[in-house]
Amino acid sequence: MRKIRIICVGKTQDSHLNEGLKIYENKLKRYCKLEWLIVKEANYSSGNKTNWLNTEAKNISKALSTKNFTIVCDEKGKQFSSTEFASKVSTLANQGISNIDFIIGGAFGLPKEIVLASQLKLSFSKMTFTHQMIRLILAEQIYRVFTIINNEKYHHD
Amino acid sequence: MRKIRIICVGKTQDSHLNEGLKIYENKLKRYCKLEWLIVKEANYSSGNKTNWLNTEAKNISKALSTKNFTIVCDEKGKQFSSTEFASKVSTLANQGISNIDFIIGGAFGLPKEIVLASQLKLSFSKMTFTHQMIRLILAEQIYRVFTIINNEKYHHD
Repeated sequence: MRKIRIICVGKTQDSHLNEGLKIYENKLKRYCKLEWLIVKEANYSSGNKTNWLNTEAKNISKALSTKNFTIVCDEKGKQFSSTEFASKVSTLANQGISNIDFIIGGAFGLPKEIVLASQLKLSFSKMTFTHQMIRLILAEQIYRVFTIINNEKYHHD
Repeated sequence: MRKIRIICVGKTQDSHLNEGLKIYENKLKRYCKLEWLIVKEANYSSGNKTNWLNTEAKNISKALSTKNFTIVCDEKGKQFSSTEFASKVSTLANQGISNIDFIIGGAFGLPKEIVLASQLKLSFSKMTFTHQMIRLILAEQIYRVFTIINNEKYHHD
């Protein structure tokens, strides 16, 4: 079965987001094995942004697997429509790539080396969303992608 | 005080979204008077998409005020970064326009006549999000805009 991992920095703080994530986790069970990997955030009470991102880069790197296709959620990345993104996921599957790691940065964004090492930079928007809310947006989008791939009724163009 | 109205089609169904919306409603009290106007959705059990959108166009039109600047949330609209959107809101205020109506369509999107009659078509993403989740994304973005305008710490570029 297809395996999707979402690697994020720091726990989901808001109960309403956790509740929403659970809804999509349940919906996704039909299509893939979804795993959340929450890596430790840096200690923001000392040091500076460079230190924090260095720490988080190390923490994210430990969680990565070279076997998986890595997609970073980066507002400067490439934008896809939901249908285009479903095609991309489908094309990957046809190339034998069904395990995908999505990476979401912490409060100060993604470390440069993680972005550079990734295989796809995916932008949801020119706007900045909270790194917490992106989790919900991504989970819903992964669900949407599978309903598109399976020709189900959920998505309206 | 600045007045923002969010006009949506149909009640917010998910409790987790309602919980999230309340958080931003509270945070926004410092900056504006935020009002939600939930207009009735069409009866999707009979008729077709054209009928539904016609009904919803009428319902939205009744809620609109010609005194307010109207922004439709339309994935085919113009994208702004959060900072650019804050500049836009600021420019409007400098032109004496501080009352804004945001319009979010229903399950089948926005009626064409509502899009055409609006003063700005705002796109969050090329991706399709649920019309329910857009409410939360918009509320957070309005909050972000005010923190940018007021030079507060919330937003990191």
